[in-house]
Amino acid sequence: MIIVLKNADEKAIEIVSKEIESKGLTPHVSKGKERTIIGAIGDERLLDVDRLKSLPCVEKVMPILSPYKLVSREFYPENTIIKVNGFEIGSDKVIMIAGPCAVESEKLLLETAHAVKKAGASILRGSAFKPRTSPYDFQGLGEEGLKIMKKAKEETGLPIETEVMDTRHVGLVAKYVDILRIGARNMQNFDLLKEVGRVNKPVILKNGVASNMKEFLMAAEYIMSEGNSQVILCNRGIRSYEPELRFPVLSGMTSLLKQKTHLPVIVDPSHSTGKKSLIAPVSRAAIAEGADGLIVEVHSCPKEAKCDGPQQLTPPEFEKMMVELKKVATAVGRGV
Amino acid sequence: MIIVLKNADEKAIEIVSKEIESKGLTPHVSKGKERTIIGAIGDERLLDVDRLKSLPCVEKVMPILSPYKLVSREFYPENTIIKVNGFEIGSDKVIMIAGPCAVESEKLLLETAHAVKKAGASILRGSAFKPRTSPYDFQGLGEEGLKIMKKAKEETGLPIETEVMDTRHVGLVAKYVDILRIGARNMQNFDLLKEVGRVNKPVILKNGVASNMKEFLMAAEYIMSEGNSQVILCNRGIRSYEPELRFPVLSGMTSLLKQKTHLPVIVDPSHSTGKKSLIAPVSRAAIAEGADGLIVEVHSCPKEAKCDGPQQLTPPEFEKMMVELKKVATAVGRGV
Amino acid sequence: MIIVLKNADEKAIEIVSKEIESKGLTPHVSKGKERTIIGAIGDERLLDVDRLKSLPCVEKVMPILSPYKLVSREFYPENTIIKVNGFEIGSDKVIMIAGPCAVESEKLLLETAHAVKKAGASILRGSAFKPRTSPYDFQGLGEEGLKIMKKAKEETGLPIETEVMDTRHVGLVAKYVDILRIGARNMQNFDLLKEVGRVNKPVILKNGVASNMKEFLMAAEYIMSEGNSQVILCNRGIRSYEPELRFPVLSGMTSLLKQKTHLPVIVDPSHSTGKKSLIAPVSRAAIAEGADGLIVEVHSCPKEAKCDGPQQLTPPEFEKMMVELKKVATAVGRGV
Amino acid sequence: MIIVLKNADEKAIEIVSKEIESKGLTPHVSKGKERTIIGAIGDERLLDVDRLKSLPCVEKVMPILSPYKLVSREFYPENTIIKVNGFEIGSDKVIMIAGPCAVESEKLLLETAHAVKKAGASILRGSAFKPRTSPYDFQGLGEEGLKIMKKAKEETGLPIETEVMDTRHVGLVAKYVDILRIGARNMQNFDLLKEVGRVNKPVILKNGVASNMKEFLMAAEYIMSEGNSQVILCNRGIRSYEPELRFPVLSGMTSLLKQKTHLPVIVDPSHSTGKKSLIAPVSRAAIAEGADGLIVEVHSCPKEAKCDGPQQLTPPEFEKMMVELKKVATAVGRGV
Repeated sequence: MIIVLKNADEKAIEIVSKEIESKGLTPHVSKGKERTIIGAIGDERLLDVDRLKSLPCVEKVMPILSPYKLVSREFYPENTIIKVNGFEIGSDKVIMIAGPCAVESEKLLLETAHAVKKAGASILRGSAFKPRTSPYDFQGLGEEGLKIMKKAKEETGLPIETEVMDTRHVGLVAKYVDILRIGARNMQNFDLLKEVGRVNKPVILKNGVASNMKEFLMAAEYIMSEGNSQVILCNRGIRSYEPELRFPVLSGMTSLLKQKTHLPVIVDPSHSTGKKSLIAPVSRAAIAEGADGLIVEVHSCPKEAKCDGPQQLTPPEFEKMMVELKKVATAVGRGV
Repeated sequence: MIIVLKNADEKAIEIVSKEIESKGLTPHVSKGKERTIIGAIGDERLLDVDRLKSLPCVEKVMPILSPYKLVSREFYPENTIIKVNGFEIGSDKVIMIAGPCAVESEKLLLETAHAVKKAGASILRGSAFKPRTSPYDFQGLGEEGLKIMKKAKEETGLPIETEVMDTRHVGLVAKYVDILRIGARNMQNFDLLKEVGRVNKPVILKNGVASNMKEFLMAAEYIMSEGNSQVILCNRGIRSYEPELRFPVLSGMTSLLKQKTHLPVIVDPSHSTGKKSLIAPVSRAAIAEGADGLIVEVHSCPKEAKCDGPQQLTPPEFEKMMVELKKVATAVGRGV
Repeated sequence: MIIVLKNADEKAIEIVSKEIESKGLTPHVSKGKERTIIGAIGDERLLDVDRLKSLPCVEKVMPILSPYKLVSREFYPENTIIKVNGFEIGSDKVIMIAGPCAVESEKLLLETAHAVKKAGASILRGSAFKPRTSPYDFQGLGEEGLKIMKKAKEETGLPIETEVMDTRHVGLVAKYVDILRIGARNMQNFDLLKEVGRVNKPVILKNGVASNMKEFLMAAEYIMSEGNSQVILCNRGIRSYEPELRFPVLSGMTSLLKQKTHLPVIVDPSHSTGKKSLIAPVSRAAIAEGADGLIVEVHSCPKEAKCDGPQQLTPPEFEKMMVELKKVATAVGRGV
Repeated sequence: MIIVLKNADEKAIEIVSKEIESKGLTPHVSKGKERTIIGAIGDERLLDVDRLKSLPCVEKVMPILSPYKLVSREFYPENTIIKVNGFEIGSDKVIMIAGPCAVESEKLLLETAHAVKKAGASILRGSAFKPRTSPYDFQGLGEEGLKIMKKAKEETGLPIETEVMDTRHVGLVAKYVDILRIGARNMQNFDLLKEVGRVNKPVILKNGVASNMKEFLMAAEYIMSEGNSQVILCNRGIRSYEPELRFPVLSGMTSLLKQKTHLPVIVDPSHSTGKKSLIAPVSRAAIAEGADGLIVEVHSCPKEAKCDGPQQLTPPEFEKMMVELKKVATAVGRGV
C-alpha cells in the first residue's frame, strides 16, 4: 500500500509509520520533490484503509492488491466448475437456465418446463418469492411455489433454481431447490450472504445494479468466506442514464470478471434488457464475449391467453434463439 | 394511462381495450395520423403496466399518475411530523442526529453522547450491526452494542437510533432503540421493509445508491402499507461517475422529495461525502435547500489516539459546524 | 402529444388548447377522475415541448413520436448502405476499419497500413488532429499527417478516414480523406455537425460519452438535415461508474440503434475498453450482436521499440483477432 | 508516480526503469512479497501514463500528483479575483448573473435587463448563438443578438456575457461582450478552448455533463495555457440516472473545486434543474455551500403572453429569490 502525505514533516512520517508497524508491516519512506510517500511492506490487507485515509496528514491511500482473496484467480488459477445433477457450470459448455419469471401455477410451470427442456435448457428457473418494487404487486406463491418447482423437477429431470430473499427462508428454500439465487437488490444483504454461505448448494449471485466489480466480488467473497465455494456470478447489468435500456450489461464486464476470478460467470439478458427484441442479440453477444451461460425468462401460456411478458420469451421464440446461440457458441469453441 | 399502439389495426385496439375493461376501466381510442393511442379512464393503478407493455401491438405505455399513494403529498397534503421523546422531526426546527459510525465501547459512546448533546444534537446515532463491504471487516457488537446505546440514552436523555439489517433482528432492535434505521443497501430488502412496517417506532429509510426517486418512495410505501406511517426519508446520495465524491447528494433532490411526499426528509452528509472537509459545506447546503434534519457522524476519542475517521467529525469540529448551521437555518426561517 | 394538467379548471384547458391550435393541431380534452389530459392531434413535431412544460397549469408533457425524422427507420425502412472506394458499409459484410490512434510518422503509418490490409481491414484509420485532455500532450501532426495518410492510401489502395475537430478544418480534411470522423467530445458541436453536413463524403459520428440515444440520433439528424446522408454511427461506449472499464459499450445499444435508424452502426472496442485484453472479446460481442463493422486501433512499430499502447493491437494480435471475428460473423450469417 | 508490475522479473524492472530514466527521472524499485513496485522520482508530469500502462509487464500506474498546474491552488494559493466593469468575481461578494436564455428581441432583452438590474443582478446573460439538440429548433439571432446585447449594456450599464460555440466566432463575440461563455457541450472542444485562451476577456467555462472534475480542470488549464487566466468555472450539474432531475449539481462539488483550484466557481441552477420550483432551493444551497456566484435565467415578457419557460424565472420571482439569497449569503459571511 502506498500512502501519500500532504506535507513532508517528520511528525506525519512518524504517525503513519507507527500505524503501519502496529499491524506488523514495515514502512518505507520516500521523499520526492513535491510529495513524501510511504510504502507499507507486508500483507497490506491487514491495514485499515479508512483509518489511514482519515489521518489529517494523509493525502491519499493507494492499495496495491485487491481486497478479495478466495474469489481471486490469483489464489485459484483454475476455473471453478460447479456440478448440478450432472450438468457442469463453468466448463467448456455454455449452460442454459430457463423458465418463467415467477411460478404462477403448476399447469403453467410444467408446460414451460417441458418446453425449455425440449429446446435444450439444462436448468429450470422460477421465483416463488418475488422482490417487487411495489407492495401492491404479486409477491409470489411462497412455499407453494417451491413445491410446484419440485414437481417440475420430478417430471422433467431438470435441476431447479429459485430466489431467496430473506434469511429466515434459506433453510426452506435449500430443502426444495438445487441452486439458490441472490437477486440484485440483495447483493449487499450481508446477513443473507452469510446464510447462503453456510448452505451446501450452488448459489447464483447477481450484481447490484449500482455495484462496481470490486463490490460484486466482495459479495461473492462473503459467501465463500462462510465455506460455500459454489458461487456462480450473474452479470445482470447496471443502472445507466439511458432511458431506452433497462439495466444494460456492460460489454467487456463478463470477460474482465473471468480474468479476475475463477468463478463461472453467466448473463441475464431478460432482466437486463426488459425488451423482447433485444434478448437474442444480447444473448449472442454474451456468449461471443465468453459467458459460461445464460439465465433466460421463458413463459409458456395457454392458447387462449396473450400472456407473453415484455421480457419473457415464448417457447418457440426460445427455441429459435437456441439455434442461433449454438452457432455462436461453436464459433467461439464451445458447445451449448 | 396512455397506451400507444404500433399500428392502428382493429385487432390491436380490441386486445388493448379488452385488457383495460377487464380491470374495470374504460378505453378511449384516439386515432392520429401517425399513431393510434388508447387512454384508460378510471383508476389506472389497477392496470398492469408490464403486461400492457408486453403486448406485441403496444409501442409504449405512459402512466399519468404516480404508483405510490400513502407516501404521496397528494393524498396527505400536510407535513408529517414525527415525535420522538419530545423532539419533532418534520416541523419548523431542523433536527440534528449525531454520534459515532459504530458503537465500539461504552466509554467511547458515552463520551460522544455527552459531547453531541452539549453541542446541540437531539438524537444519538450509532450502529451495533454494521454492513461492511468486506467479510473481513468489523461487523459490529450486536446486542452488546444495543445495550451500550440504551445506557447512553439513560445517561444523557437523548433518544437513540440504530441500523437493523436482518429480519430476524427487528424485534430485538426495536426493544432497545427509539428509531430504527434501514441502510442504503437494504432499501429494497422488501421482507425487512415489511418487518419494520409492523413495528410501532419511527424508521429512517436511506435511499439506495442507485435508486431513483420513485423506487425510494415505493420503498417507503412498503413500510407504510404495513401500518407504520412514521417514516423519515434520508437522502444519502447516489453513485456517480465522479471519483472524487463518494455518493454525492443531488442538489434539488431534497426539495423535490418534499414536493412529492409529506414525510420528513433528512440528509446524511457523512456517508455521502466520505471527506471531512466537505461535511460542513454539504450540511449548510442541505439546510439551505430545505432538509428537515441531518444525521452526522461524530466520534469522541481518548486523548492519546489519533482516531478521527475520514468522515467522522470530532466533537469540537461538530460544535463549530453547529454554530454555522444555526445561522443558515435562521436565514431560511427555521431553528435548529 | 399528451399534456397532463395539474388541475382540471377551464382556464387551464383553454390556455393549453389555444397553444395547440396556434400550431395548427387540434386539442382533444379528456377528463379523468384524478387528472385532465389533453391530446394534440396533428403533426406534434410542430409543438414546442419546453414551452408547454413551462405553463404553470401543466404537470407533464408526453410526446408520442420521436423528434428525429431523416435518420428514422420509420421514414426510410431500408438499411442505408454507404459505399467507399468499392467497399460497402451497412451491407451483409462486416467492415473492418483499422490503423493507429495517431499518425506519428510516414514510416510507422505505412507499415501499419500494409499490415492491416494484409490481415483483412478495408479502411485505414489514423488521426492527424488529436483531441487530448491535456494541453501538454501531443496534439497531432495536422496537415502533415493528412499528407501521410494520403500517401498510405496511394501505396495500399485502402480508403482512409480521420477525425475533424474544428469547423475551420473541414474543407482541408475533406480534400485529403475518404471518410470524416466526428469524435465523442464533438458530438454536440453543432456548428461542426452542420459543416460536415455540407460535405459530400461519409461521416463517422461517435456518440458522446454521456449522450443518450435520442441525442445521438439528433446529432446525426443535424448532419443529414444539411444534405449529407452518408452518416455512419459509431457506438464507442458511455461513461459509467465502473472504474475498471473506460467507456463501456452498453450491450443491446447497437441492436436498438439499428431498430430505430436505417444508418449503419459500427463499434469502437479500442477507445471503449482502453484495455488490450478486452478488445477481442468486445469485438466478438459487437459482431454477434449485429454491428456493421468495427474501428480498431492497430499500431505497427519498429522491432527495437516496446511501443504497443494500452489499447492498440500489434499487427499479429490484430490478425489473430480477425480469424476469431470471421468465425463469429459467419455464425450470425455475415461475412467480414 | 508508482508503477505496479505484474511479475517481479528483472526484465520488467529494466524496461520500466529505462522508460523512467529516459524522461530524466529516477526509478526506485521496491520488491514486496506479492508485487514489485517502481517509484519514479522527479517531475512525474513528464512521464506518459498511457505508454507506461501499455507495457505488458505493468499492472497499474498510479500518479501521485494532479495533471494540471496553472489552475491548481497548490501553485497559486490565493483566490483569483476577476474584475469586470467594476464588479469582482471570486471575492467576498456573491455575484449574480441573470438574463434570458436566448436574446429574442431588443424589446424583451431591454425589459429583462432593467428588471434584473433593479433586483440586484451585476451582469446580464443572454445567448445569441444557441446550441440546440434539434436542428429544427431556434438557433439564435447571431450577430444581430450581439448588437442587442451591447445596446442593453449601454442602457443599463450592466456588463454582458454570451456563449461562443464556434472557433470562427470568437473574434466577433469578443468584440461585443465582456465575458465569453463556453457551454457544457463544448467543454472539450479543444480548438475552441485554445481560441478563447488567446482573448483578453474573462471566460465562463461550464463543465460537460459527463465530465469529471479532473477533465473540467484540464479544460480550464487549456484556456490558461494559452495565456488567458481569467477563467470562471461554472458548475452546471451532471447527467445522472434520476429522471426527475435534469442535470443535478453534485452537493460538495463546488467546495471541492474551490479546494483544488484558485479560480472562482459559480453555479447554474436554471440549466441544472430545468424546473422552476427547484431554482430557489438549489440557489440557496449553492450559496450556502460556498459558490462565488450564480448564473440564472430570467425572462421578462409582455403582459399578453404566457411566456415563462420551464426554467426561466419572471422578474418578480427573481426579485423574491434575491431576498432569500441575501439572507443565506449573510449567514455564510458574504454579501450579494
